[in-house]
Amino acid sequence: MTADLDHDALQALLDRLSKDAPRCFNEGKVADYIPALGEVDPNHFGIAVCHVDARVQYAGDALTRFSIQSIVKVHALVLAMQRLAPDDIWSRVGREPSGQAFNSMVQLEVERGVPRNPFINAGALLVTDLLVSRIVSTQYTLREHLRRLSGSDDVGFDERVARSEMDHKARNAALAYLMKAYGNLDADVETVLDTYFHGCSVAMNCVEMARSVAFLANRGVNPLDGSRVVSPVETRQLNALLLTCGLYDAAGDFAWRVGLPGKSGVGGGIIAILPGRMSICVWSPRLDGYGNSIAGRHALEGLVEGIGFSPLG
Amino acid sequence: MTADLDHDALQALLDRLSKDAPRCFNEGKVADYIPALGEVDPNHFGIAVCHVDARVQYAGDALTRFSIQSIVKVHALVLAMQRLAPDDIWSRVGREPSGQAFNSMVQLEVERGVPRNPFINAGALLVTDLLVSRIVSTQYTLREHLRRLSGSDDVGFDERVARSEMDHKARNAALAYLMKAYGNLDADVETVLDTYFHGCSVAMNCVEMARSVAFLANRGVNPLDGSRVVSPVETRQLNALLLTCGLYDAAGDFAWRVGLPGKSGVGGGIIAILPGRMSICVWSPRLDGYGNSIAGRHALEGLVEGIGFSPLG
Amino acid sequence: MTADLDHDALQALLDRLSKDAPRCFNEGKVADYIPALGEVDPNHFGIAVCHVDARVQYAGDALTRFSIQSIVKVHALVLAMQRLAPDDIWSRVGREPSGQAFNSMVQLEVERGVPRNPFINAGALLVTDLLVSRIVSTQYTLREHLRRLSGSDDVGFDERVARSEMDHKARNAALAYLMKAYGNLDADVETVLDTYFHGCSVAMNCVEMARSVAFLANRGVNPLDGSRVVSPVETRQLNALLLTCGLYDAAGDFAWRVGLPGKSGVGGGIIAILPGRMSICVWSPRLDGYGNSIAGRHALEGLVEGIGFSPLG
Amino acid sequence: MTADLDHDALQALLDRLSKDAPRCFNEGKVADYIPALGEVDPNHFGIAVCHVDARVQYAGDALTRFSIQSIVKVHALVLAMQRLAPDDIWSRVGREPSGQAFNSMVQLEVERGVPRNPFINAGALLVTDLLVSRIVSTQYTLREHLRRLSGSDDVGFDERVARSEMDHKARNAALAYLMKAYGNLDADVETVLDTYFHGCSVAMNCVEMARSVAFLANRGVNPLDGSRVVSPVETRQLNALLLTCGLYDAAGDFAWRVGLPGKSGVGGGIIAILPGRMSICVWSPRLDGYGNSIAGRHALEGLVEGIGFSPLG
Repeated sequence: MTADLDHDALQALLDRLSKDAPRCFNEGKVADYIPALGEVDPNHFGIAVCHVDARVQYAGDALTRFSIQSIVKVHALVLAMQRLAPDDIWSRVGREPSGQAFNSMVQLEVERGVPRNPFINAGALLVTDLLVSRIVSTQYTLREHLRRLSGSDDVGFDERVARSEMDHKARNAALAYLMKAYGNLDADVETVLDTYFHGCSVAMNCVEMARSVAFLANRGVNPLDGSRVVSPVETRQLNALLLTCGLYDAAGDFAWRVGLPGKSGVGGGIIAILPGRMSICVWSPRLDGYGNSIAGRHALEGLVEGIGFSPLG
Repeated sequence: MTADLDHDALQALLDRLSKDAPRCFNEGKVADYIPALGEVDPNHFGIAVCHVDARVQYAGDALTRFSIQSIVKVHALVLAMQRLAPDDIWSRVGREPSGQAFNSMVQLEVERGVPRNPFINAGALLVTDLLVSRIVSTQYTLREHLRRLSGSDDVGFDERVARSEMDHKARNAALAYLMKAYGNLDADVETVLDTYFHGCSVAMNCVEMARSVAFLANRGVNPLDGSRVVSPVETRQLNALLLTCGLYDAAGDFAWRVGLPGKSGVGGGIIAILPGRMSICVWSPRLDGYGNSIAGRHALEGLVEGIGFSPLG
Repeated sequence: MTADLDHDALQALLDRLSKDAPRCFNEGKVADYIPALGEVDPNHFGIAVCHVDARVQYAGDALTRFSIQSIVKVHALVLAMQRLAPDDIWSRVGREPSGQAFNSMVQLEVERGVPRNPFINAGALLVTDLLVSRIVSTQYTLREHLRRLSGSDDVGFDERVARSEMDHKARNAALAYLMKAYGNLDADVETVLDTYFHGCSVAMNCVEMARSVAFLANRGVNPLDGSRVVSPVETRQLNALLLTCGLYDAAGDFAWRVGLPGKSGVGGGIIAILPGRMSICVWSPRLDGYGNSIAGRHALEGLVEGIGFSPLG
Repeated sequence: MTADLDHDALQALLDRLSKDAPRCFNEGKVADYIPALGEVDPNHFGIAVCHVDARVQYAGDALTRFSIQSIVKVHALVLAMQRLAPDDIWSRVGREPSGQAFNSMVQLEVERGVPRNPFINAGALLVTDLLVSRIVSTQYTLREHLRRLSGSDDVGFDERVARSEMDHKARNAALAYLMKAYGNLDADVETVLDTYFHGCSVAMNCVEMARSVAFLANRGVNPLDGSRVVSPVETRQLNALLLTCGLYDAAGDFAWRVGLPGKSGVGGGIIAILPGRMSICVWSPRLDGYGNSIAGRHALEGLVEGIGFSPLG
């Protein structure tokens, strides 16, 4: 286990990763299941790290906002953990890798409406249902939560993306109605979907996103303001969940290659956590067949190699 | 992140865990699918740690040998990684959590004979096939491998257990023949099964077992003799695989509760790795519904809590 | 192969079946997933046959109307076959037994939104989508279709049942949205559901129902008015589909015991066809675990035995 | 419903079907999973009918023997029904369409080792297990059974085919071992496989085959010698099972197109039953993707159309 890189060496590493990213620009394609996502320039690349002392370093398009999509599932789960008792959450959603695509119905039916984990779509809809059922002004509360975590007061929903998601809601509606059929969804399905899609529509840049999850590298304390987000044990649990379930049915491969807790979104963002050291956000819109950013994953592999340290040895 | 416990504090912790273990002795039951396993006294408990400087500490029945069963899948995979090129392995078996019971056929058929990972039964049979097809005297080689890793010259097969497994081979035979039907098994099925069951039959105690996987805490170097077992990168990869796939369909729950790379066997043993610090082996025969040792898992939770350190924050 | 029973002998048989039906009244239970269905007296039993010369014979509560529920899937498919080209139907829905429960999502996902056959819920929703997308005033047209087939001008929707179904739409909504997600549903999901539930809500009695499907015993000609409903070949095809797919995952057992093309509904009705001879409708609300009327199925077994003739030898 | 064709008209129809068969000779391919099957000339076509008065008519290569393969599942089930009590059979194997390919393991695992019906491979292995466990000299008995039913004293096993099947046993071995694992297979797996493969290896021609199943058109009595094979009720039940389960996952399509109880084999043979009239055997080796003879199925469609009669109207 080696010491951390110093500031300059890390900056050089980030700059090199950013410079190398275009090598991946002939592969993959931008998510286009909703028009609003398909319009982004596919050849962006940004990377940012937030140290546990709140220092931020970045390279590339790290100040360009992108649609955070499924990464918001992490923030939503954290909000639920802050507001609800553990049993109220974990009696309704599991903590196991799904071994299936992120939007699979098969498993949800076999397991009678209980989603495998909070990071597949069904699980995130379930968490949204918990929030909608227990918190007034859920959308407002979620937005404030994201602003506080990221330290950016103007983070917000992209209404055009949210509306576009709602126009293409069929599969998520099917998941929500199936949970409803099994009695595992309390709120109105349309309300749950609207709130979920608003969460997915949030636009953030790499710096904001890295900041917003820095507490996961810092035993639960947000380094920006010193506030406790979750307990140290919950931090470890969240990181475990991210490591086993954060990248859908490519979670094992990501763990093998990168070895860090992580979460991806179809907007091309990926977060990763180096516990005790830093949080990382990388963004590049071209996706592989699993819906994960190709250049993003390569950059994270390079980062871990360059830093020469991993929590897994 | 706190410093390690010193020698005495850790010993006190191990002793306490050993003393507390009987609290779990009214739950679960010993694996009895083969008579030879069912005969063990269910109320054993042992725990051992092997530090990266090769020092060993232990408590309880840590010197009583038990049937290592599925834990041998780790050693077998390591042997395959030593002898074969990565592509020869990973083109034949995946690296993803299965999301299914350890002996499921469903997934194996859907994925046309390619097992999800090397730690479910199908995957371990596949690794055994690789070994049998490429290595002469596979059983002898595997036994020597285990002796070298554990530093114990008299570790060996329990022929009675191996025979008993062969007498109850039906489900593993079904898995092996299904892979054969898909052209993903080269060797004779009976030979693969016999070799696999011999591996599962190996008897080791907690100290021997902790030593045999200490290289996973030591960036790939066996602390007993300083020999390199696998490279640092391979070590990290193996730990990632253990963390995502080591406890079958309870992998997510184990990661949530314990947060360490681990592997269990139906003999009641569990290994866990604290990268950079130590390897751990705990043993207690009573199993939960997933086939994992109840007292063993509780002890590992207590150990992580007592040490106050986890690779995941 | 024996001759048909004469009028009096058949009447005696129907009377005996009606008298024997209460033997089944200690088993099964009334469908109660919607309150409006759960209110029916469970101990009704009615049976009616409609000969190919339009004569009707009946016994028991054959003039009491009941909720026809899934039996309407037959009439809806016939309406679609009258109005659409075969390819427009059979490119969108299969003709194979499902081997699954009537409301399974698993198969629908595996087969990418194409339902196995028109008699499982997904298939009936698909047929409803075809009707809604191609026919103006679909509900009115469907009601007129049922009135014409049954010869009863006051057959109509039970709005209370239709509303109650809509209030408990979750599972059917999940099926419809999943087909939508796969691009296999054209119309608005809510409109499809509303039309489908109205069809299910229709109330008819055994005599009306037997008349409404008598064309299936008469090579496609409605014996009431001599009008052609479908061609002889289509008649044979519909009977084949009813025989292989009419009773969900109990289709094989029903074929084994009764040996006639048939269709059941959770209102307790079952229709059966004795090609060249007669159509039959039996009704009794207590259902078995597959959602089929217990007394109804027993009566059909007794009828076939009493008549001493079966199309299958 | 029209009268039967007279002798000359039917002969003209058979001759025409035989003459038209080569139109299908540019599609499909011969089963080649074992070399012995792959050697047959793909452009054979034969058809034979056996009337309930034992008269036989035929055309094309109806006197050339072919490998009956899965059609023997019918004869084997009949033998089991003659020798065992119904409960001894139907507590071990179901009577429902599988909705899956003939050699699927998924369903067999989900349903814990109980095959869906006796005509999928798992079900036929189960029936073979029943025979092997209850009858001495099973292979001899099965051969005598086939000789008696077909009226041909020299019908027998093709040892080369049987050996070749055994050499490629992997998938059937997987099915058998999985049933063994669930405690639903009594005999030794190798013995069951050997007996099953011998049954599949039997060589018969269309005339012999049509004769051997003529009892299914004749309420259970073999028209060759007037002996009762099964009861009238069992005959109806067998025909129901053939209609719902005889053509694997193409059973619904076959029922829709042909409308007769039938059973196919990968040797290219198909039998069909016109209850009360005749049994039919057609043979042509080119198979569609479901393993059913293409020219065979077309000829059966033409036969039903030409005869103008179907049990389903």
